[in-house]
Amino acid sequence: MQSEQQRIGRSRRWFLRAAALFGGGFAAWNSPTASAADLPNRLGAPVSGYGNRSRFVKALRLFGNTRTPQAASSLSPLHDSQGIITASSLHYERHHSGVPDLDPATHTLTIHGLVNRQLVFTLDELKRFPSVSRIFFLECSGNTSSEWRGANAPDVQRSHGLTSCSEWTGVWLSTLLRECAVTPAATWILAEGADAARVARSIPITKAMKDVLVAYAQNGEPLRPEQGYPLRLIVPGCEGITSIKWLHRLKAIDQPAMTRWETSKYTDLLADGTSRMFSLEMDAKSIITRPSGGETLPGRGVYEISGLAWSGRGSIVRVDITTDGGATWTPAELQTPVLPMAHTRFRASWNWDGRDALIASRAADDTGYLQPTLSDLVKLRGSNSGYHNNAILPWKVSSTGVVSNGL
Amino acid sequence: MQSEQQRIGRSRRWFLRAAALFGGGFAAWNSPTASAADLPNRLGAPVSGYGNRSRFVKALRLFGNTRTPQAASSLSPLHDSQGIITASSLHYERHHSGVPDLDPATHTLTIHGLVNRQLVFTLDELKRFPSVSRIFFLECSGNTSSEWRGANAPDVQRSHGLTSCSEWTGVWLSTLLRECAVTPAATWILAEGADAARVARSIPITKAMKDVLVAYAQNGEPLRPEQGYPLRLIVPGCEGITSIKWLHRLKAIDQPAMTRWETSKYTDLLADGTSRMFSLEMDAKSIITRPSGGETLPGRGVYEISGLAWSGRGSIVRVDITTDGGATWTPAELQTPVLPMAHTRFRASWNWDGRDALIASRAADDTGYLQPTLSDLVKLRGSNSGYHNNAILPWKVSSTGVVSNGL
Repeated sequence: MQSEQQRIGRSRRWFLRAAALFGGGFAAWNSPTASAADLPNRLGAPVSGYGNRSRFVKALRLFGNTRTPQAASSLSPLHDSQGIITASSLHYERHHSGVPDLDPATHTLTIHGLVNRQLVFTLDELKRFPSVSRIFFLECSGNTSSEWRGANAPDVQRSHGLTSCSEWTGVWLSTLLRECAVTPAATWILAEGADAARVARSIPITKAMKDVLVAYAQNGEPLRPEQGYPLRLIVPGCEGITSIKWLHRLKAIDQPAMTRWETSKYTDLLADGTSRMFSLEMDAKSIITRPSGGETLPGRGVYEISGLAWSGRGSIVRVDITTDGGATWTPAELQTPVLPMAHTRFRASWNWDGRDALIASRAADDTGYLQPTLSDLVKLRGSNSGYHNNAILPWKVSSTGVVSNGL
Repeated sequence: MQSEQQRIGRSRRWFLRAAALFGGGFAAWNSPTASAADLPNRLGAPVSGYGNRSRFVKALRLFGNTRTPQAASSLSPLHDSQGIITASSLHYERHHSGVPDLDPATHTLTIHGLVNRQLVFTLDELKRFPSVSRIFFLECSGNTSSEWRGANAPDVQRSHGLTSCSEWTGVWLSTLLRECAVTPAATWILAEGADAARVARSIPITKAMKDVLVAYAQNGEPLRPEQGYPLRLIVPGCEGITSIKWLHRLKAIDQPAMTRWETSKYTDLLADGTSRMFSLEMDAKSIITRPSGGETLPGRGVYEISGLAWSGRGSIVRVDITTDGGATWTPAELQTPVLPMAHTRFRASWNWDGRDALIASRAADDTGYLQPTLSDLVKLRGSNSGYHNNAILPWKVSSTGVVSNGL
């Protein structure tokens, strides 16, 4: 495509132009170029039934080397994320007894308890009901728990990788509860999974009747096995474990069931030794995914700061960016459409002068809530907690370009 | 979970209740139920780096058994689609010389021709520019060509499977053209792929400066190889081939290049022997994906009619449904958010009385355009054509429940 002379000329022009565009701080890059001779001249791979990613793409969910990887979590590679949809293959996981292998031909959903009509639904029956699709985030309430007592995780996958966002399709739970003639005595719904642990959580009836989905599809396909195939409750905005995977039973009850998953676990231990329980809604939170911990910036100049914000209480209305450790904040651009209880991608331009910097984002939602600092959060809930850490997490950019946890 | 008596009682209650809900036409189903003993009681599969779909999920892209499967297309399984996002692994394909295996470390994009600064961009350089994500459909202009002379395809995968919808992320082409200081003399942009065929198309500069993306990501991951990894032009609303895959070159020119892909191919042969050329925009179109050809309805009763609508000119504002062969039409519900130049999912309830029926959808977009019948389209363009068939396609539901092509 280019002579050597053109290539050199190009580098110089690029530098000049880029310098103009990016306010003088843009570095010149080496630009390897392919000559026409390097381009493919033979037939490539044929069409195929089900595609795979390129052999050059390496992003993986991350998990520890534990004795029971069936009772573990895997973290989504947020540093590689783009847009708001998480590829289903990279959606975070949190299992308590591994991923069961359920046959959709025999799997059923039973609705019982305080209902006038106990019903058992097959998958085919559920798919006959009016369906609905919504883009919702999920977040494990243990996400970012490692940072409650200060900087710990070296990168955004480890600090924030327990959140993902998908387009879910299913039936409104309210439709099914009405079908069963749920009685006025029912104030909670107990949802139970068909995994060996029978993970079970209680959900207030008001939420169950409002916007909870019984989902059978994710991002245009049937649910992935590790996301609850063939059936998952999706409780938008609430801590991930309430979105019960491998859903097989819903019981209408008149008080919370007090399962181990909402008493000894998934409660927030406060400073006075009591616990906050049923802290269901995920507060507004955001994190810069690029640049983020573990990266090295090649030099001073203009960078795009990009990240994700979300709120379990509604829609993100603003994300502020600081590049001076919180002294000043500037609103970022929000990717449209901004959807309630979905990841919201934000972007801002940053001209890095090459000196030490502390960059961070903070989200505001349409309830008027502003994402707190860690010290504000600790003031409120003490230092025993771990769940529901939605504090601002800054990244430190050193003068060498190395990015690290800036808490 | 249930005694035998409960199971029997359940079936009867389900029938009675369903009959009430669905207006008396709902059939009773057998409801296999799992007893607690059938549920998993051992650890399942562990967490993993990159997930796969369930072994029970079988949907595949469909393609012919040809001598050159590198120059072929594969059709997306629309009958199994849910929501608006197409799983990347099931996105339709159309290749002219197969999928090249490109190394992102050496792949470059050259912009040259009528520009004041010819530039060569590496992937890393492109990712430094301000990024943007949008949900856009793609459709091969050959989609539904099989139906131009009447009913042919037995199912929706074969009739409409050359369209898909993804969240794409990249850089606005306008940003790069400005960076290169494109000159006022440039009225078209020639885009060329790095596949062996060097597929190349000309795009009007007005479109190039308006909303064209140079994309490097799809549904949260890097582009899939068969979708152009590592770089693809996304020309929203225009026939799929203009969204040049494996993009390596953009040339600013002062007239269309008249490549073989816009002259001998991808032109619409009219009745008088002349051709419509550069028929870029995809007109409003819709199709019912469920129930659709190849299915057999289990009996009379209530069904959800669901499908996809899209327009290359803007947003879908209405989708009408007929269940009586076009005598009457009723608006369907549109899944929100309705996005411009994206698939729009529509849904409607239908109480099938068990007699022969002809069901169809027709889309209207925000330019005031209404999807035509095939006879209207043939009146306009004659019967020689194949590209750009956006006609209404009805499904025939016979009294036996068998669904077939109703053209």
